[in-house]
Amino acid sequence: MTIDLTQALGHEFAPQPFIYSARDAALYALSIGAAADPLDDAELRYVYEFHRQGLQVFPTFAATFLFAVSQQLLAIPGLSFSPAMILHGEHYLELKRPLPPQATLTQHAHVSQIYDKGKGALVIVDISSRNAQGEEVAFNQAGMFIRGLGGFGGERGPSSDINRPPTRPADAVQRSQTAPNQALFYRLTGSDPNPLHADPQIAQMVGYGRPILHGLCTLGFATHAVLKTYAENDPTRFRSVRVRFSKHIFPGETIVTEMWREPDTRIIFQTKTAERDEVVLSAAAVELWEKA
Amino acid sequence: MTIDLTQALGHEFAPQPFIYSARDAALYALSIGAAADPLDDAELRYVYEFHRQGLQVFPTFAATFLFAVSQQLLAIPGLSFSPAMILHGEHYLELKRPLPPQATLTQHAHVSQIYDKGKGALVIVDISSRNAQGEEVAFNQAGMFIRGLGGFGGERGPSSDINRPPTRPADAVQRSQTAPNQALFYRLTGSDPNPLHADPQIAQMVGYGRPILHGLCTLGFATHAVLKTYAENDPTRFRSVRVRFSKHIFPGETIVTEMWREPDTRIIFQTKTAERDEVVLSAAAVELWEKA
Repeated sequence: MTIDLTQALGHEFAPQPFIYSARDAALYALSIGAAADPLDDAELRYVYEFHRQGLQVFPTFAATFLFAVSQQLLAIPGLSFSPAMILHGEHYLELKRPLPPQATLTQHAHVSQIYDKGKGALVIVDISSRNAQGEEVAFNQAGMFIRGLGGFGGERGPSSDINRPPTRPADAVQRSQTAPNQALFYRLTGSDPNPLHADPQIAQMVGYGRPILHGLCTLGFATHAVLKTYAENDPTRFRSVRVRFSKHIFPGETIVTEMWREPDTRIIFQTKTAERDEVVLSAAAVELWEKA
Repeated sequence: MTIDLTQALGHEFAPQPFIYSARDAALYALSIGAAADPLDDAELRYVYEFHRQGLQVFPTFAATFLFAVSQQLLAIPGLSFSPAMILHGEHYLELKRPLPPQATLTQHAHVSQIYDKGKGALVIVDISSRNAQGEEVAFNQAGMFIRGLGGFGGERGPSSDINRPPTRPADAVQRSQTAPNQALFYRLTGSDPNPLHADPQIAQMVGYGRPILHGLCTLGFATHAVLKTYAENDPTRFRSVRVRFSKHIFPGETIVTEMWREPDTRIIFQTKTAERDEVVLSAAAVELWEKA
């Protein structure tokens, strides 16, 4: 467990392709709870490639582009740590262009910041996804928390006390029941093969008791709730989402997303499990485009 | 609507590849209700590629190999008909070897029989799926009923009064609740893009009111019920399955499979919807291998 900022900071990852099909995008949408009502036409657009309006890729599919470069997280020069110590702590996704129904994108990633959080290091990786014309389609910023790697005398970084919900009751609340095997579907979207989300023995070894749902899956559910509530379920109005992954959720639990609109195009939210009343996504907000 | 037996009978389809990955096999298994309980280790084998025993491909995945050649059904010489008149009437699948977790197979298909059923023609297509070594992995026999193409003075074919359930009450019954969007998941297994299973407008045009579940999806649910009840959920004991697709089922309905064991390795079954008490799979049986 060592850290050498001069080597690690600014390190550029080897560019990686990410190829997806309409089928991949549709499976992603189903796995984050879209088209739970198969007769809802607005929802069908996310999963049905022959839809009259064409397939609409659900915006947070772009958060999974991260996984094209995630293998390289373990090979950042100047950072030495066990893979078991890494946690996806926070995430920011900004969509620069609508996602086409299928695409071949190239991921350009680098280490943009490393903060010293005491108990660990927060390594910020910026990932810019570009299409064949070189245009930026999506920008992801993943905050990877590496336990045990803190205390190296680095900057603490900006306060994480952002997107705090107002004290008034939520303006809107959406509930989504996940399936007991939700994580088994989600992991087939290809974004995260981590056994923690499927293997009961490994989940127990790591201390969770049983497999947990992917944080990015919960992010998809929550963003869907915001779009349905404040953007007429129009995916083109999605601009960005930011979350902290505060706690885990178990597949089968009910995802409750509480939302506060302030102002018109900025929706602060927090996401809980109904069963355990734990906040699982915090410091969270979706930014929308104005209605055209 | 014309038929020329001399041209059509024996017609060989152009060989077609079918390539599948462990992800495809896992998605298929999930979409026919496997691993509904994600903590059941025997079920997890069907969907988790890192399982200690390796991924076990659910046997009826092989029934979807049909779709590698299904486009060619519309171009059989000597048969002229509208695609809207074709129904998948019956199906037989025999597994010759265990299915590997991923494979590239070649489909060799030909028209083996054409029967005159009066109201239509029953076109029997035999499909032999072979691996890179030329060994047969699976044999499918699809009975395609073409409405309006009967009355050409052909043979009526063998009586379809087979696998009739005994008069005693079923020896065992299994119930499976399908999800309202079950067909949307199943169709992503890539086996059948027919809009009838997703598009409410098209389903209404064809007279069903709303999208119906794929018959082969119900076949998967039913075979799973038989394996769990009579073969300790051991996929290697599956030998063959035969069904007639009697009626449609709507996603969201409950699939009820009634089973009669006679004798030890032959399980006659019929499958109903609980909600409408309609028989959807009839003349049906699974043949098992003896326990090793």
